Formats: sequence, structure tokens, C-alpha cells
Amino acid sequence: MPLVIAASVEHADVLLALFIIIAAAKVMAEIFERLRQPAVVGEILAGVVIGPSLLGLVQPSDLISVIAEIGVIFLLFTVGLETKPDSIFRVGKRAAAVALLGVAIPFAAGYLIALAWGGSFVESMFIGAALVATSVGITARVLASMGLLDRETSRIILGAAVIDDILGLIILSVVSSIGTTGVNVTGLLKTAGLAILFTVVVGLFGSKLMSRLAPKVDSLYLSKPFFNIGLILCFGLSVASIYFGVAAIIGAFLAGMALAEATDDNPKMHRMTGGVTEFLVPFFLVNIGMQLNLSVFRDSSAVVLAVVVTVVAVITKFLGGGLGAWGMTRREMAQIGVGMIPRGEVGIVVAQIGLGMAVISEQFFAAVLFMAVATTLIAPPLIKLCFAEDRDRDGVTDTFVPDEHADEYSRIG
Amino acid sequence: MPLVIAASVEHADVLLALFIIIAAAKVMAEIFERLRQPAVVGEILAGVVIGPSLLGLVQPSDLISVIAEIGVIFLLFTVGLETKPDSIFRVGKRAAAVALLGVAIPFAAGYLIALAWGGSFVESMFIGAALVATSVGITARVLASMGLLDRETSRIILGAAVIDDILGLIILSVVSSIGTTGVNVTGLLKTAGLAILFTVVVGLFGSKLMSRLAPKVDSLYLSKPFFNIGLILCFGLSVASIYFGVAAIIGAFLAGMALAEATDDNPKMHRMTGGVTEFLVPFFLVNIGMQLNLSVFRDSSAVVLAVVVTVVAVITKFLGGGLGAWGMTRREMAQIGVGMIPRGEVGIVVAQIGLGMAVISEQFFAAVLFMAVATTLIAPPLIKLCFAEDRDRDGVTDTFVPDEHADEYSRIG
Repeated sequence: MPLVIAASVEHADVLLALFIIIAAAKVMAEIFERLRQPAVVGEILAGVVIGPSLLGLVQPSDLISVIAEIGVIFLLFTVGLETKPDSIFRVGKRAAAVALLGVAIPFAAGYLIALAWGGSFVESMFIGAALVATSVGITARVLASMGLLDRETSRIILGAAVIDDILGLIILSVVSSIGTTGVNVTGLLKTAGLAILFTVVVGLFGSKLMSRLAPKVDSLYLSKPFFNIGLILCFGLSVASIYFGVAAIIGAFLAGMALAEATDDNPKMHRMTGGVTEFLVPFFLVNIGMQLNLSVFRDSSAVVLAVVVTVVAVITKFLGGGLGAWGMTRREMAQIGVGMIPRGEVGIVVAQIGLGMAVISEQFFAAVLFMAVATTLIAPPLIKLCFAEDRDRDGVTDTFVPDEHADEYSRIG
Repeated sequence: MPLVIAASVEHADVLLALFIIIAAAKVMAEIFERLRQPAVVGEILAGVVIGPSLLGLVQPSDLISVIAEIGVIFLLFTVGLETKPDSIFRVGKRAAAVALLGVAIPFAAGYLIALAWGGSFVESMFIGAALVATSVGITARVLASMGLLDRETSRIILGAAVIDDILGLIILSVVSSIGTTGVNVTGLLKTAGLAILFTVVVGLFGSKLMSRLAPKVDSLYLSKPFFNIGLILCFGLSVASIYFGVAAIIGAFLAGMALAEATDDNPKMHRMTGGVTEFLVPFFLVNIGMQLNLSVFRDSSAVVLAVVVTVVAVITKFLGGGLGAWGMTRREMAQIGVGMIPRGEVGIVVAQIGLGMAVISEQFFAAVLFMAVATTLIAPPLIKLCFAEDRDRDGVTDTFVPDEHADEYSRIG
């Protein structure tokens, strides 16, 4: 009897699912680290293994996707905490160039490939849109785990990914409105303007405001005032972002960035945030892996399409991102190019909307899903490879991370 | 357009609800701390204010109750981390006496009061059962915030609450089975035996096993091996608890206790866990407050019943818990008595099951709900009062908490 009672009231199934996700993610992370592969890859593959594709131990659900969303929000918040605004503004122009080329080339290529494969105009626009937005979470996690977030190239990637996300959401709204009612130019311009205004204003003034308020925050009765103010700011700006037309993770990143100066010498803040990240980010990664339904690929033409879309996604983003960094050394261009490759959840979101609107076929949907997971799996080893020399020069090895803050995130991925 | 898209995909409503809960809880905690009242009370009242009773900004939902459950699981895990098994075993006999009397007296009183009020046999059994189990979360949070978890009285309260919870679940299963099919003595004995066996075995051997495994844990590749192993153990034992017939929080507490020795000198572990607790526990407290629907009390007889049940709940638990500590000083008996008062979520769970089985009336349900919230609100100031001298003697004041570990939780409540 108590089993039944407890199970109904205490969400026994939910707790079991959470346990399986955490255990699988951590075990796979451990295995991949031992094989000297990025833990991120292990955690995504954990999702493939326990998800509907293979063992079917855990089904994707609204609850898990909400926890995954909170996880990626916290991840971007911690990345923001490591990013002083000046360091982003200093690379602003270059980041904009990387973002623009990194959006234009994949979009055009995706559109043309889909058209050539027999896709309709709207369908092809959707495929192009799905190839646009970089999933900054994956790259940030890998760079953080290598202790390289403060590198110039890392900052360009982060800055470009933020711009990229805004451009991606604008393109998505254009494509969606074409798919439903046709283009409403005034509305789109207004939306785009608001999104850009929000990001720029918060980015420019958030940090100044928080630095001025810092002494007052310190005198609050709250136990860990900065952590608690950080929580409120993180969720507040995440929600605000959505209403201003950008992704929640951009707001979380801006919240972290606003607190970066004020909490620079506050290791407690970093450890506490690190604890939440370490707990919740596996849900984000496992959830990506669970989205992949391998059974779709029994049809060989689906496999071909998926591989073609993936190859196009990798090459065009690498070229676009790399060319945007024209004038830097070739290795730096390559670093930026590979840093922009992962699409992760953003591509999946675009594809889901297209499928929901019944404007893209199941086969295209599967191809985009495959591309999103595959680019996320391919990028971390490439990033590790391209940044390996930088790391070695800094004396950072696999088993020793000297920087205190970097250590908070080290090998969280 | 992006607003609609983002909202549908990014759970805008959910993020907004989470933001409101966090912000309201932290603001109320700050206000109550300034008024020298326990922050816990402020956070529960935040739930009453933003919940359906008053502003209606946030509705109770499955999602929020899952996050609340994860929050209280983490809270008990951190309390376990502060509780070395020996310190519990040393007070084992006394804790058992406190638990037994603290269960018997409230159960008998609740049963008789309900019968006198005109309740049926089954209904009265349910009301008795709802008065039984102490919500250790609230007391632990208040004691932790005062840096008093390592006191003998604190350990007796914790130990008694664990035993109490097991007894409560056994009583609940007896009452439920009477409510449905009649008593199945063999089944009940088996269930009770399993529950007790599980708790005793994990409590006795968990810590020894983890202390032996500690050097191996340290050599794992995982970034924060103890925190990650702790996560797996915490959720694993929570799930196992449910299947063995005890509450998930007991498993979380046992998981923390198993790691208490091994992580004693590991402040990182404590800070990282503290971060998760600080983030998630407000959901647990706000969720309790949101359960209270004030509109039920437009009927004055409902108010009278609610007040009677609450008074009985407070007095009988205070007497039962205090008498169980017979032989200690009068102040210590009082400390233990008040420490056992809060019923919180356990009473609510019992009432919900009764309502779900259609064996208790709406009025009794409202009374139990009121009792659960009211005991949770009444207890913290009483606990603070009864323990105030102990704190002062240790030189712990409201603004300074010297112990590094206690500091991790200080004023989280």
C-alpha cells in the first residue's frame, strides 16, 4: 500500500526518470573523460542510449524539457558571470562580422540544398533557418571545461553567438510568417528593433548598474545576497528576453554579464552557481540526445539527406564563421569557425515549429534533428583539437586547472 | 511573431511562474529577516500571497510540485551531509521514545476530536493520521540557519523525525487500506518490515561503505566527484525509499548522512549543494503556502474546526515530543517538543489522499490544510525562541555565523 500511495503523491516515476538521467549522464561523462573525449559528447549520447531510440528507459516529456531549459539558462548565466562586458565590446565588430557571415552562408546553402532535394519554397526556407543559429551552450561548456573562456577567440565566439541568436530568431519569424500569412514588414521591423534594443541596452548598462548597486546588495539580510540577486536577475531577464523577442538564454547570459564585475572576487558565488549548473546541465544535454529517433533512418534516402544536411551545416558555418574573422591568424579563424558549428536545441526548435505548422516533411524534420545532434557531437572534439595548443601554452592540462574560477566549471562538460 | 514562437517553445509561462516564485520568496525572506522573524515564514507567506488565495499570480501545478519535491529532497540531503551517523545512533533510544509518543498522542487526539465533531470512523482515522508525521524540512531549515544542527537536541529531533516519518507512512497505509478493502495484516507487516529494514541497513552501512570508497571517488575523472556521486546517491536512494515504502526525503537524508564523514573537510561540496538548496528550497516553501485556499474559511464553522485541529496538533506534538525526552532538562524537552511541531507537506499529502478516496469531507480537508500551513508558520518563531539561548552561548549572532559549514546554509531559511 505505501508504495502505491507514495508513488502517486511523490512522483515516483518522475524521480526515477531524473535518477536515470543523472546517473547515465555522469557515468557516460566519466567514460568519455577516460577516453580523453569531451564529456559533453558522452552526456548527449547518454540521452540517445536511455531515450526512445535505444533502451527507452526515459521518454522525453514537458517536465524534462523544462528542467533542461532551466539547465541551459543556468549554463549561460555562469558563462555570463565569466564574461566582463568590456571584453565583449572590444571584439564587437569582429563578432558582428562572424555572426553575419555565419548566418548568411548556412541559410543560403540550406535553402538551396532543400530546393534541390525537391523541397517547396517554404520548406526550403525552414531548412535554411534551421541551419542558422549556433547553440552557444555546447561551445561555452567545452571552452569553460578547458579554462579558455577568457581568450579573445572565445569572446568573439560568445559575442557572435548572441548576435547570431537574434538574427536566427528574426529569420525564424520571417519564415514562419511566410508559412502562415505572408510577410508583415512593419511588424517584423518592430520586433527586430525591440530585440536588438533590449540586448544592447541591457548589455551596455546592466553591468554599470549592478556595479553601482553592489555595496547595497552586500548589505542585504539575504544569506548569499549576490547569489540570490543573481537568481532573480537571471530568471527576470530570461523572461524579459522572451517578451522582447530573443531567446531566454540570451537574457540569462546578460544577467551573468551584468554581475561579472561585481562578483569577480566572490568564489562562493561561483561555486554555488557551479553546483546548480553541475546538477541541471546534464538534463539539457541528455534531452538533446533523447530527441533523436534512430528508427527514422531505416529509410536509406533519409540517411543520405541527413548526412548531406549535416555536412552542409558543418562546412558552411565553419566557412562563414572563419571568414568573418578574416585578418586574424589562420588558427584563430579555424577556432572561431569550429566554435560556431554546434546547432543543438536551436535547430531542433526551428524544425519542431516547421513540423507543427505542417510545412516541412517528416524526412526533412528527421534530417534537421540529425544535423542538430550530429553538429553538437562533432564540434566538441574539433574545438578541443583547435584549442589544444592554446591550452598547452597556458600550462593547463587535463588533470590540472589552475584558475580558481575556471575550476568551478572544469570538466563539468 | 517571435514572441508567440518563443512562448510556445520556451515555456515562457513556466519561466514567468518560476521567476515570480523566486522573486517573491527572496523578497519576503529579506523582509522577515529585517523584522527579525524566520525567513522560512516569509517564504511560505510569499506562497499564500502569490497563490490562488490572494493575488493568483501563480497556480499550483504538477511542475511546481515536482520542483518543490526536488527542493525538499536537496534540503534533506544537505541536512544529512551535516549529520554524522554516530551522532544519530548515540541518541537513538531517546529519538525513538520522542517519535513514538510524538506519534501516539497526536493520532489519538486527532481521532477523538474528529469523532466528536461528527466525523465517520474512517474520516477520524484519516484526521488522526494527518496529525502524525513531522515535516523535518522546516525544523531542519530553521536549525541550520541558526547554525545549531550539531546540537544533541537537534540530532534527537532529526532522528525522531525520521522514525516518525516511517511510523506515519505505516499508519497512513493502515488507514488507507481500512478506507478501501479492510486491513491486510500480512501485507502491512511485510511493508512495515521492509521500510524499517531499508532505513536501518542504509543508515548503518551507508557511511562505512562510502568512507571506504572515498579514495576511489577522489580518483574519478568527474570534475567534482563527491558532488556528482552525491547527486547519484541522493536521487538513487530517494527512488529506492519510495519503493521500500518510506518517503523520498528519508532516502535523501540517508544519502547525505552516508557522505557526511567522507566530505567533512570538503567545503566545495557543501557550497555546491548549498547553491542548489538556495535555488530550489523556496519552491518547496512557496508551494506549501500556495496550497492554502483562504476562501474555504468564509464558512465560520470551518474556521473553528481548523483552529481546533491546529491547536490540538500543536499541543499534542509538543507534549508527545517533550515527554519522549523525559529526563533531559526542561528547556531541552521544550526544544524537542517545538522542533516536532511542523507538519508541512506530510499532513497535506495525507489529506489529499483522503480527499482523493472520497472518505474525508471538504471541511476536514481544509482544516488539515490549514493545520499543516499554520503549524509550519507557528513553529519557526517558537524554535528560534527556545533555541535562542543556545545560540547566544555559542557566540552565534544574527549577523555572524562562524562555522564554515553552517555558513553554507545560514539564513537560507
